[in-house]
Amino acid sequence: MSATSAATTFTPAPASADIGVYGLGVMGANLARNLARHGHAVAVFNRSHQRTERLMARYADEGAFVPASELADFVASLRRPRVAIIMVQAGAGTEAVVEQLRALLEPGDIIVDAGNTFYKDTQRREASLREQGIHFVGMGVSGGEEGALLGPSIMPGGTQESYDRLGPMLESISAHVDGTPCCTHVGPDGAGHFVKMVHNGIEYADMQLIAEAYDLLRHVGGLSVPEIAAVFRSWKDSELDSYLIDVTTEVLERVDPATGAAFVDVIVDAAGQKGTGSWTTQSALELGVAVPAIAEATFARAASSSSAQRRAVREAALDSGAREIGYDTAEERQSFIDAVRQALYGSKIAAYAQGFDEIATASTTYGWDVDLGAMARIWRGGCIIRARFLDDITRAYEAEPALASLLVAPTFATALESVLPAWREVVATAALAGVPAPAFASSLAYLDQLRAERLPAALIQGQRDFFGSHTYHRTDDPTGVYHVLWAEDGRAEEKWD
Amino acid sequence: MSATSAATTFTPAPASADIGVYGLGVMGANLARNLARHGHAVAVFNRSHQRTERLMARYADEGAFVPASELADFVASLRRPRVAIIMVQAGAGTEAVVEQLRALLEPGDIIVDAGNTFYKDTQRREASLREQGIHFVGMGVSGGEEGALLGPSIMPGGTQESYDRLGPMLESISAHVDGTPCCTHVGPDGAGHFVKMVHNGIEYADMQLIAEAYDLLRHVGGLSVPEIAAVFRSWKDSELDSYLIDVTTEVLERVDPATGAAFVDVIVDAAGQKGTGSWTTQSALELGVAVPAIAEATFARAASSSSAQRRAVREAALDSGAREIGYDTAEERQSFIDAVRQALYGSKIAAYAQGFDEIATASTTYGWDVDLGAMARIWRGGCIIRARFLDDITRAYEAEPALASLLVAPTFATALESVLPAWREVVATAALAGVPAPAFASSLAYLDQLRAERLPAALIQGQRDFFGSHTYHRTDDPTGVYHVLWAEDGRAEEKWD
Repeated sequence: MSATSAATTFTPAPASADIGVYGLGVMGANLARNLARHGHAVAVFNRSHQRTERLMARYADEGAFVPASELADFVASLRRPRVAIIMVQAGAGTEAVVEQLRALLEPGDIIVDAGNTFYKDTQRREASLREQGIHFVGMGVSGGEEGALLGPSIMPGGTQESYDRLGPMLESISAHVDGTPCCTHVGPDGAGHFVKMVHNGIEYADMQLIAEAYDLLRHVGGLSVPEIAAVFRSWKDSELDSYLIDVTTEVLERVDPATGAAFVDVIVDAAGQKGTGSWTTQSALELGVAVPAIAEATFARAASSSSAQRRAVREAALDSGAREIGYDTAEERQSFIDAVRQALYGSKIAAYAQGFDEIATASTTYGWDVDLGAMARIWRGGCIIRARFLDDITRAYEAEPALASLLVAPTFATALESVLPAWREVVATAALAGVPAPAFASSLAYLDQLRAERLPAALIQGQRDFFGSHTYHRTDDPTGVYHVLWAEDGRAEEKWD
Repeated sequence: MSATSAATTFTPAPASADIGVYGLGVMGANLARNLARHGHAVAVFNRSHQRTERLMARYADEGAFVPASELADFVASLRRPRVAIIMVQAGAGTEAVVEQLRALLEPGDIIVDAGNTFYKDTQRREASLREQGIHFVGMGVSGGEEGALLGPSIMPGGTQESYDRLGPMLESISAHVDGTPCCTHVGPDGAGHFVKMVHNGIEYADMQLIAEAYDLLRHVGGLSVPEIAAVFRSWKDSELDSYLIDVTTEVLERVDPATGAAFVDVIVDAAGQKGTGSWTTQSALELGVAVPAIAEATFARAASSSSAQRRAVREAALDSGAREIGYDTAEERQSFIDAVRQALYGSKIAAYAQGFDEIATASTTYGWDVDLGAMARIWRGGCIIRARFLDDITRAYEAEPALASLLVAPTFATALESVLPAWREVVATAALAGVPAPAFASSLAYLDQLRAERLPAALIQGQRDFFGSHTYHRTDDPTGVYHVLWAEDGRAEEKWD
């Protein structure tokens, strides 16, 4: 099929495809190719015909593709019960395609939204399509373009019935670790998209922690960029071993060809975001779950991009009160590097504890019954946060499914005790040296809040009762509701029914 | 009117009231009484007739009330253009009342929602009612029940036309400072409710900072509760002087009559919340504004109330690696107390800078043109965060309305330079001593992020380009869009159009 001015019309091929992909941008095309490579006959369709033609021109030999020129042909080419994966722009784009498909599908058919859709939109669509007997599956896919092609981590929601049809195909194309697919049925309706959202929130936190570690090694440790790259490379042989550490090593090892400078130094230091960090934090706030590491990571990106403010504060040239902290001997420097590793690991445990807490809480709130250990298991491969560390999380939940927090899983409790002294030193050093470490500090404070015998929240309750009559409970009567008549003589305490 | 089994029927009195209040819980009743005391004839109505009767039975002599038994009579009693204030349960309750009133009002009339409504709901209602020619004003009211009665801070949104009618009455009942009313027209549609929301978010941060100061004085300073109360009382003569400091003093001075213990020690240390801290943080995330102090404060409340997790972590009895830090001499102790004061002040500046940044950003986003100095001015009295400090903010914006951040206002820049060394020491000490100070630490990191010459966000951008092809800008070509072909031999850099 050559590129001519007239679009190629593909011959309709009814009931010949096992599954279909609508939306052939890089992600959609890669998913389709992945399916085809694994022996599934894949119907492919795109609103702009050119992409379908390009896919066929380049990759038709990778497997059995069933291209369609018209949406009706695409739908007809799918054998029953039909499975149509949508990989288009989230929001209005996805809404439009769902409506188009809804009109052509029949009860028992399955629409799969593989985009980064907000889970509440997925819940809404799932409920709406269910009235027609159509299954709607919100499916998280992590691993980027490469993952989509070679084996992503896949997080499908929706009904068990839809997973019976869809699951085997997904498990054939996902990443695999120790023979186990990095794909499982997460839970009903929006559970898959929720878990994908939290995966991304955790990713933000993980990246922010790595960034803070890098910054401390540079500005307190005094290491050069190549030296820091070597440190990150060495951490591959530690409990920190992960895809993100590998990526960090690659980025830090790169020399900019144009200038000969370290590549990281020619990048404008304003971090962008697609929104999932915000969603994770917003959802946590609604659910009443504390995820401060994810919030700090998200806000750090926003702050880095606030160029007018940064310029104004830099130009104010505040005498920062920061100390010059450095290390004179190789031993001291190595000790600091090791302390940073420990702080990074401790903070990572805290950040993941927060993320899994959010999944657990949503699971309870929405009645999803998500298997937390399974989530860690399917994140061991394919996805951006894949790491040795997730093995430990999987085992922790296998040993104790009702774990109140990852912080108290024996493996992690032991690890925390081991790293805490160094972690505290690093947070203190960052504060004194003027190197911003919001996620390191927040994660430490999170742990200190949860382990505290008494929190100053008691004072806050007293203040709230004073100015807002919001009431409090007494330590000697925790279920009773009390209020002090602050404005009256004698300030008696009254108990409310 | 005695309490009989039959409800009193109030005589309709058409066009005899200047303003009306629908909803006679304590807040609504207090607002009505405040209006009546200031010479306005106030129509009063409540769904449950009993409250109206009770108000009249107790307070009829305070001014000219015009009670109504029927909604239609309430509306008819208002002279044109009618002003009806709603003070009912936010959400469905307010929605229902708005619909009831909408059916009875006429073009030019004004509905005022004085509850804590989310600003987007106010925007929606305002737009909808505008089609009928009815003005809808979302009005923030701060100061609790006492403020509502004696003089609150008032933040009305809505049209200028509605403020022409409503404003004089509100300015007569608001708090006043130096003869200036703590009330002004904030901006159109939902601007008033937005600003009230941020006021509450700032309040959460302010309270969390005070709580952390208290906790440090207790657990590091080794002060007793009465000694800490004396410290807070002494801070009334410092730059920290505020209503919240006064409240803190009152709470800490209280001895529990039942046990003889410090009152703060008999309060269950689980902080409650009504949601405005969450809203403020969620809105900031959507607007792309960093408000980490407000987020940490909100999450600290959630963490304090996570009883199962706290219990599990306490029972794990982690060896925390915390140091025993204390002060042996009176001088050292006083020095620490003063350092805490400085850390509290520096953190407060940072937290308020974040809140005002959120208002400024929303103002730009929604085209509200909010006068930031005026917001600080009307918060000097009546509201929960009233403080001497707000004078400084007012003057900072008067001197420079387009201030990029409060951090760089000359007064605050100087203050920050003065407190930074001690602030750093306190954050470091908290981390080493194992006393959670998430908001102190976060606020310091926020400042350090904004003043940094280079942030490790550059590394994050490199990572994002590696695994997601998200592109970056070059320091030598900040508007160009670049991507490294990481997966290809040679890893060339390409520039995108």
